[in-house]
Amino acid sequence: MHPKPDTGDTSSIPARDSHTEAARQVRLDWLRSRTEMPLAPLEHLQMRAEDLANNVENLIGAVEVPVGLAGPLLFAGTHASGRLYAPLATTEGALVASASRGASALSRSGGVRTHAVAQLMTRAPVFQLGSLGEAASFAEWITDRLEELRTQAVRVSRHAVLVGVRPVMTGRTVHLVFSYETGDAAGQNMTSACTWHVCQWTLARFPAETGTEIDRFRIEGNLSGDKKVTYHSFLNGRGTRVVAEADVCADALRNVLKTTPEDLLETHRIQRGGGVHGGMVGNNACVANTVAGMFTALGQDIASVHESSLGHLELEPAGDGVRATMVLPALIVGTVGGGTGLPAQHALLDMLGCAGQDGQPRLAEIVAGFALALDLSTLAAVSADEFVAAHERLGRNRPSHVPAPPHRDGDGDGDGDRDRDRDRDRDRDRDRENSSV
Amino acid sequence: MHPKPDTGDTSSIPARDSHTEAARQVRLDWLRSRTEMPLAPLEHLQMRAEDLANNVENLIGAVEVPVGLAGPLLFAGTHASGRLYAPLATTEGALVASASRGASALSRSGGVRTHAVAQLMTRAPVFQLGSLGEAASFAEWITDRLEELRTQAVRVSRHAVLVGVRPVMTGRTVHLVFSYETGDAAGQNMTSACTWHVCQWTLARFPAETGTEIDRFRIEGNLSGDKKVTYHSFLNGRGTRVVAEADVCADALRNVLKTTPEDLLETHRIQRGGGVHGGMVGNNACVANTVAGMFTALGQDIASVHESSLGHLELEPAGDGVRATMVLPALIVGTVGGGTGLPAQHALLDMLGCAGQDGQPRLAEIVAGFALALDLSTLAAVSADEFVAAHERLGRNRPSHVPAPPHRDGDGDGDGDRDRDRDRDRDRDRDRENSSV
Amino acid sequence: MHPKPDTGDTSSIPARDSHTEAARQVRLDWLRSRTEMPLAPLEHLQMRAEDLANNVENLIGAVEVPVGLAGPLLFAGTHASGRLYAPLATTEGALVASASRGASALSRSGGVRTHAVAQLMTRAPVFQLGSLGEAASFAEWITDRLEELRTQAVRVSRHAVLVGVRPVMTGRTVHLVFSYETGDAAGQNMTSACTWHVCQWTLARFPAETGTEIDRFRIEGNLSGDKKVTYHSFLNGRGTRVVAEADVCADALRNVLKTTPEDLLETHRIQRGGGVHGGMVGNNACVANTVAGMFTALGQDIASVHESSLGHLELEPAGDGVRATMVLPALIVGTVGGGTGLPAQHALLDMLGCAGQDGQPRLAEIVAGFALALDLSTLAAVSADEFVAAHERLGRNRPSHVPAPPHRDGDGDGDGDRDRDRDRDRDRDRDRENSSV
Amino acid sequence: MHPKPDTGDTSSIPARDSHTEAARQVRLDWLRSRTEMPLAPLEHLQMRAEDLANNVENLIGAVEVPVGLAGPLLFAGTHASGRLYAPLATTEGALVASASRGASALSRSGGVRTHAVAQLMTRAPVFQLGSLGEAASFAEWITDRLEELRTQAVRVSRHAVLVGVRPVMTGRTVHLVFSYETGDAAGQNMTSACTWHVCQWTLARFPAETGTEIDRFRIEGNLSGDKKVTYHSFLNGRGTRVVAEADVCADALRNVLKTTPEDLLETHRIQRGGGVHGGMVGNNACVANTVAGMFTALGQDIASVHESSLGHLELEPAGDGVRATMVLPALIVGTVGGGTGLPAQHALLDMLGCAGQDGQPRLAEIVAGFALALDLSTLAAVSADEFVAAHERLGRNRPSHVPAPPHRDGDGDGDGDRDRDRDRDRDRDRDRENSSV
Repeated sequence: MHPKPDTGDTSSIPARDSHTEAARQVRLDWLRSRTEMPLAPLEHLQMRAEDLANNVENLIGAVEVPVGLAGPLLFAGTHASGRLYAPLATTEGALVASASRGASALSRSGGVRTHAVAQLMTRAPVFQLGSLGEAASFAEWITDRLEELRTQAVRVSRHAVLVGVRPVMTGRTVHLVFSYETGDAAGQNMTSACTWHVCQWTLARFPAETGTEIDRFRIEGNLSGDKKVTYHSFLNGRGTRVVAEADVCADALRNVLKTTPEDLLETHRIQRGGGVHGGMVGNNACVANTVAGMFTALGQDIASVHESSLGHLELEPAGDGVRATMVLPALIVGTVGGGTGLPAQHALLDMLGCAGQDGQPRLAEIVAGFALALDLSTLAAVSADEFVAAHERLGRNRPSHVPAPPHRDGDGDGDGDRDRDRDRDRDRDRDRENSSV
Repeated sequence: MHPKPDTGDTSSIPARDSHTEAARQVRLDWLRSRTEMPLAPLEHLQMRAEDLANNVENLIGAVEVPVGLAGPLLFAGTHASGRLYAPLATTEGALVASASRGASALSRSGGVRTHAVAQLMTRAPVFQLGSLGEAASFAEWITDRLEELRTQAVRVSRHAVLVGVRPVMTGRTVHLVFSYETGDAAGQNMTSACTWHVCQWTLARFPAETGTEIDRFRIEGNLSGDKKVTYHSFLNGRGTRVVAEADVCADALRNVLKTTPEDLLETHRIQRGGGVHGGMVGNNACVANTVAGMFTALGQDIASVHESSLGHLELEPAGDGVRATMVLPALIVGTVGGGTGLPAQHALLDMLGCAGQDGQPRLAEIVAGFALALDLSTLAAVSADEFVAAHERLGRNRPSHVPAPPHRDGDGDGDGDRDRDRDRDRDRDRDRENSSV
Repeated sequence: MHPKPDTGDTSSIPARDSHTEAARQVRLDWLRSRTEMPLAPLEHLQMRAEDLANNVENLIGAVEVPVGLAGPLLFAGTHASGRLYAPLATTEGALVASASRGASALSRSGGVRTHAVAQLMTRAPVFQLGSLGEAASFAEWITDRLEELRTQAVRVSRHAVLVGVRPVMTGRTVHLVFSYETGDAAGQNMTSACTWHVCQWTLARFPAETGTEIDRFRIEGNLSGDKKVTYHSFLNGRGTRVVAEADVCADALRNVLKTTPEDLLETHRIQRGGGVHGGMVGNNACVANTVAGMFTALGQDIASVHESSLGHLELEPAGDGVRATMVLPALIVGTVGGGTGLPAQHALLDMLGCAGQDGQPRLAEIVAGFALALDLSTLAAVSADEFVAAHERLGRNRPSHVPAPPHRDGDGDGDGDRDRDRDRDRDRDRDRENSSV
Repeated sequence: MHPKPDTGDTSSIPARDSHTEAARQVRLDWLRSRTEMPLAPLEHLQMRAEDLANNVENLIGAVEVPVGLAGPLLFAGTHASGRLYAPLATTEGALVASASRGASALSRSGGVRTHAVAQLMTRAPVFQLGSLGEAASFAEWITDRLEELRTQAVRVSRHAVLVGVRPVMTGRTVHLVFSYETGDAAGQNMTSACTWHVCQWTLARFPAETGTEIDRFRIEGNLSGDKKVTYHSFLNGRGTRVVAEADVCADALRNVLKTTPEDLLETHRIQRGGGVHGGMVGNNACVANTVAGMFTALGQDIASVHESSLGHLELEPAGDGVRATMVLPALIVGTVGGGTGLPAQHALLDMLGCAGQDGQPRLAEIVAGFALALDLSTLAAVSADEFVAAHERLGRNRPSHVPAPPHRDGDGDGDGDRDRDRDRDRDRDRDRENSSV
């Protein structure tokens, strides 16, 4: 089918509602013409436009995000084990190298232990009653009907299991926090549908049973925390709660991470305090880097990077080194649906062994393991005062008029001066960056 | 140059430190062999491996993220004006359509007014002194030396302007919050380098001037909020603070967004309360969707989606409709450096007029405008009880055994039953999703 | 019995462990002698020292906190009804007057509706296991043993009913959030005792049943939120959750609160936004004033003012005026135990009808009602620009060299100039204040 | 002058606006008659009713709050030094004993070092302009006029020094955070008055200079954080920021606090994690206990216990013991004004040396020192598993049917059984408590 011709307002994007390659070309041509930009890199698309109908509207092409491979990281987890490699889609230098360095330190120390604790997806509709008393009655009524609600929910999806409904009374307005287990799916859409239908049932049944009218209904009162950072999600769960832990020996700290247990613990102590004094939600170094890199590479909803990158890093003395623990309380991951079916993304999920049954907890554990590895490497770089040096060694930031920062594991080739001359020439490019690990 | 052959441990990723296409192929072959996965979709890469040396290590390929075009949205901003289109890289259906719907409502009402308030990048090193008294002296000393610190900073980068240093005394440990303006760059790396060198100067000068030793130094004590959601960044700024505002007329609410001022205000009131009762940082509907979509399409650091997706949406009655205001307090955007030079990303930045001077505040305003558009569309869908229906109309979630949700602007073709039969067949796929708008 | 003579170090407070009046006098004499201060106002004590053995150690006397009476406020609540008066112990002028003004507006509009939703007291011990797997097993084990835990708890106190135990796994460390209903007691101590004994049982039983050792135990891992402001308490409850609601008519707004529905709603909208932009926990005007005043007057634990003063105020248009709703999510109140038995405090509890059965939910409702009244009065004062004037009319802050702020309900006696002359004389005293409503 | 007779509605509290003892008696009689309660303990009032005119309205009497003396605690602070004793007004047993125990451990280790970093009082009015552009201009205009604003402010109070005005643009609404130093006063009222008058000047001057109208003004937009817990106050300061630090030697840990450095550090590590996982604002054990006890005893605004009880406790290994640091970021204290002039409160302030010049920073340091002492004692009790035992030894909670908790420093008199028999008799009273330390 050919895309419909664009009629009327020339500012309207043409071929709306068509998901063909031809429609894509129509839109791209139109955009070129309108903006007088060649947009050449958008021309080629490896994926088939027709396959993307459920993923995007008004498709004009794609951006490639480079994928680097970090690892190996030795896992001994509940769902993940053996030496694994993380594909990280990123445009920020040093990230993959640093994650690999952390993974090396952990692997040399015997690896990382991981455990996916539980998975939940939430949706929180709102009902408004005629009085406080009616609201209280409604809250009680709904709490007593979990079994019937489950019966309604399962009619909509066999994959979403309603595990609880918690009323939050805020006056005559009652929010209901519906929690579901959704298997290998992240589950936002299926739980929305289930909840909507359960609410339709409720809207009919509650008045019929009690004679009490419901004044208003909204499918979402913003208590679910979908696409937001909330303490509710952090404390009560949304997505997968997962834990990773490793004992890092002094040898690995010294020879891989270039630090000592004492220095690392001290850096952690200081950073923990900085987190409290900065009003941080959770407390970690850079969990977002791992989450964003893996989410993008593996077809997760990139918007969920916002809510999923919460984490708590804990360090304590253990043996001759340190024990490090990472808790990711609300990691929104799924291994079916959404972008997980796109070709490269699916291939990478498959490579990780996450494309089949129980892919979701396995993926959560792999993310947590690599998040721990990267955070440790970052803390170690700060401890050894190599944080800036590591970024600069990658050629983007070396300052021209001042001494180079130390790098104890430097190449020692004695051509630092020559490096600096070369750097000076690209001073302008060098400073034009927007990355950080 | 050929990549170095992989020696020793076969678990090590080969060709480390090489950024050639050949090295990429070596790694990809090695990964295929090791995992027994074909990884065919990774084979082809449009970008040149050699150009990605500063963006990623251990490159194995790229993932394509589909880009849809949302808009037009009429801007009347300080840096952005005219009808603009947002490229959104996403794998989640309905997002582009909903953003376009919101943009249509705003444009029909006269458009969105935007203003980039200020831009800041922060880095927060830590100094530990020998006593509380010395720490207090150090805090005072550094505060008095802003001019000299600036002189040091400018030696490292001409692009980063040090605007302030604020000591936060937490005992004998003193965090220093360095704030810079970094022009069109997001600036994390340049400010790290500047700060490190300023600190080297401080580590030498303070003892020389005062005779007081500094016990410890760390380049980062986790108060900068880099890659984390913190109240410090929300309240005191990190990245660009930007505001978008629109008066949405009753006609646009009714005919485009299918709701009324009263219903929309009521939904907002309820969702605002839900945000407070859920411990939300900021208060909005789904800013993360817009931020993630545009960040990915435009070569921003995707990991910054975590900290950048904070926002505050405000609605109030105005004229015959509503006035809507969106504040994004900490949007980490840059239009030079990082992934902004990748081909498709750069082409899209250029298409938006953000590739030249003052691209950064312009980009921030465009993000804020579209964030406002999408949030309004989402709120309206909740108000009109179309939120679930909108997702289901896109074919992914229609429940098979229950009535379809209402869609007032439905196609009206009367073949709902047939739709449902078809849907039933793909029940399994339908529920396997992980998206949500 | 005479207090033991003070031996040894003269810096030690004498008569430790003695709770007699004689011991009090010994300590007071010793303190006078040591500090060379007369401390005359401490001399007289209405209460009997011997009765305070469970309330305080090293008693030296008491401070009187003045009690003003606010009200009447007409209640139509689940546990509170009729015209009630709140005793507010405070040293800050304007508080009682403002609360009375708010109460008058509410009463004239038909009164306040209140509902105590639920009461909970929490204690959160910590267990550390030998591995993640063991920790997961322990979490599962304890969840399955609620009935046995209840059996153990009830042996310690007949008043604390264990309603749930929720494990929070943070690595091999597992926090357990024990929640109890404690009737009319706030219940911190009884639940500590119950939890400790339940934990002793667990420490013996879990290893015996499973062969798995428990490495460490702590009675509290800081997740209970006792004496702290936490989102856990706000979201999941600690103390009593209580709701108050009123429809305030335009007449009451105009004639009592000197404002209009529009102005009040606008002030609320602005202040709500200010709360979000300030990172406020909850969102209200001055709930702490009511909580502190009533807690102090009524023998509550004053330290609990910190955690109990969270609240969410919501306003919306209703009828010709506004509907106002106050939620206090975590109000730590009890009507037995602690300071509730002290003479004046008990008399005031009795006067409120809170000294008997179900005193606790009744007290919670009365606090919530008056908190709503005071918040409305404060918002109205800000709306009418009388906030500063109201404080200044009470004679403490009138500036001498500038025009007086407006007070529409002023006395109109035309002697403003004379007032200002008089004020000038006490300029020094006037500015020396530390109060605010 | 005799109080005015009560006319009209018999529910109105009589003698409004009169501050005499006679008026108090009229109100008390009326309340007795209305409630049919004797209210005998309210009859006697040591303070003179006439002196309380600025402290309270509708005075009916006072509650006595018992004051215990904790200490001595050896101070070596910037404003506080020598052995000092803290008066704690409380009704909760164990608090004074535990604070004294902590003080003993600190004193034996060489005492506590304290430093009041800075004092600030804030008020945050709001201006609404006609457009985003005008709002941006207004924000710039006001920032440039600090000197003139100061000139206006000083006309109102010689005691409040305006140190800064920070605009926070949230659309066309601009909040202005005014920060003042207020000497020995807490300063809420004087800064309200100053700010109001500065705003009057601004409301006249800005339009006159720029021709731009200001649409709306509110004296407070809820960004000041007055009487609320906000991250703004925590991060940016409100009240006095004060730090206390001590090195606690192993001997004091062992012999006074009955714990070891290792156990204490481990407890702290666990509790720090619990705080993060509970969404705690700050991170400490029970700062609110010290703040509430000292605020009540010393005439501070008890409502400020809510916002003032934030704190961050940090522990690290040092010497053969631990170094402990307490930061109180936002302690609202004043030593003139408010309740500081009441007889007993003033006598106790005087006893502490806080009634004269620089009383305010001295008081802040004393509070911080004792907060550190109490927190350490509490952590130690948890470490040694004596937390519950300590409370139970005071006779209020001993369970009757289960083994007593351990107390290593027990009296060893062998009459535990007898104790338990006696305890059983008062089972009912025992459980009726609402306290906790």
